[in-house]
Amino acid sequence: MNIVIAGLGIIGGSFAKSIKKYTDHHVIGINRSPRPLQDALACGAIDEIGTTASLAQADLLILGTFPEVAVSFVRDNAALIPANCIVIDSSGIKSDICPELSALSRQYGFPFVGCHPMAGKEQNGFSASEADLFQNASCIIIPCTGTPQDVDTIARLAIKIGFGKVVYSTPEEHDRMIAFTSQLPHVIACSYVRSPVCKNHNGFSAGSYRDVSRVAHINEKLWAELFIENSQPLTEEIDLMIQHMSQIRAAVTNGDRSALEALLAQSRKIKEELGE
Amino acid sequence: MNIVIAGLGIIGGSFAKSIKKYTDHHVIGINRSPRPLQDALACGAIDEIGTTASLAQADLLILGTFPEVAVSFVRDNAALIPANCIVIDSSGIKSDICPELSALSRQYGFPFVGCHPMAGKEQNGFSASEADLFQNASCIIIPCTGTPQDVDTIARLAIKIGFGKVVYSTPEEHDRMIAFTSQLPHVIACSYVRSPVCKNHNGFSAGSYRDVSRVAHINEKLWAELFIENSQPLTEEIDLMIQHMSQIRAAVTNGDRSALEALLAQSRKIKEELGE
Repeated sequence: MNIVIAGLGIIGGSFAKSIKKYTDHHVIGINRSPRPLQDALACGAIDEIGTTASLAQADLLILGTFPEVAVSFVRDNAALIPANCIVIDSSGIKSDICPELSALSRQYGFPFVGCHPMAGKEQNGFSASEADLFQNASCIIIPCTGTPQDVDTIARLAIKIGFGKVVYSTPEEHDRMIAFTSQLPHVIACSYVRSPVCKNHNGFSAGSYRDVSRVAHINEKLWAELFIENSQPLTEEIDLMIQHMSQIRAAVTNGDRSALEALLAQSRKIKEELGE
Repeated sequence: MNIVIAGLGIIGGSFAKSIKKYTDHHVIGINRSPRPLQDALACGAIDEIGTTASLAQADLLILGTFPEVAVSFVRDNAALIPANCIVIDSSGIKSDICPELSALSRQYGFPFVGCHPMAGKEQNGFSASEADLFQNASCIIIPCTGTPQDVDTIARLAIKIGFGKVVYSTPEEHDRMIAFTSQLPHVIACSYVRSPVCKNHNGFSAGSYRDVSRVAHINEKLWAELFIENSQPLTEEIDLMIQHMSQIRAAVTNGDRSALEALLAQSRKIKEELGE
């Protein structure tokens, strides 16, 4: 396949590197700024630097940009995308953008398949990308306007470049789950480190501090967009979290050890039932 | 030294194993139930199974029990502890128990030094103990009634058995810091996993879920005691956490992207200034 990747940040760059490492596909990079393209070409992550004109040869277009940019890129270039070119995104939210991309897909005749690689780290940009970023991670696929054959093409590619499994979902289920598994931990980390004692944690901290605070090293532009575009499921999770913390707080303040033990035991059992 | 360890759980057991691995000291184990003693003797973590009568020969007594049991153990056996035997505890809270143990120390003439190894994991019991659990961890020391020479003996032993550094503190500072670095992450993890969608996280989760939820696999009896004995600093941290989460929630609900970016950027800068 000729694969065009638009946006060579950590995710687009990792797609490029993993496709070149694990497949024989031809990879063409497009990016707003030239530096990631030069770096990607130099390290063999792409075979050539492209322009939007390269879309005419594409069998697969991978959108590696922020969600809103993914939509505007496709809108601006929809007429250039061949009808046999599968378009996939890599956004962390789906309800907001899958309908728009599906509508463009129907209008211009190319298939669109929503995709969310459940991998990342607290750095970003092409320099943070890795050929093995997706190793054993889950690849969430939202079929949208893709045929079963298109979806199968994407699922096979995902497994070939290192994903551990493919999970099929809907935009609504995806966003509700991601609000909990990914967005809420970022809200937690960013809220946590703002305690005034945080700056003095050294010498008094260990794994618990490290793990809870890790993703506070956040890309605020990306995550502000993701949070606001998933406002309702996220605020529901924040409200639940505050409610559960308040229950523990009340038991602590009242010195009610049996109520506190019961609350904590509930949580332990949830982890045990999950085998974690 | 003859070292008596009372309580062979994960921490007492790791003291035993690391002392046998890295020093030539003679280690005597005491435990309420016989099984950990037999296991510890069988694997060479202790040189002999002792009784409270063994305290008469001790140069160092390490209390590996829950905080309240540490106090009652010393109270019940204070008359058996020689005046030249340094007593250290390993509790996660200090303001509540250091004064009591210091008072017993003054009354009976032995030195007491508060100690908190900043290491652990989400399992417990002797079977979870490791000779290298303390590798590179911080050992917090509260001098209490120990002479500078006693404190130095403990600090040298800590470094010898693998701790990366020794930090000196007061009971009040210790408890304020631990409320943030250790207790709040446990409150967070236990509150987090109680979301109703948690049980379906597989396939939709990655490192963020794993890291935030890890310590929800909690020993509820130990942590209920620790939380209630550190009620004031902990509830202050919970309140701050709820306040910071509510600020993010408000910006999300209002769709106020610049306010949200500003909040998240604050957190990113805190991590950057810490070099994390």
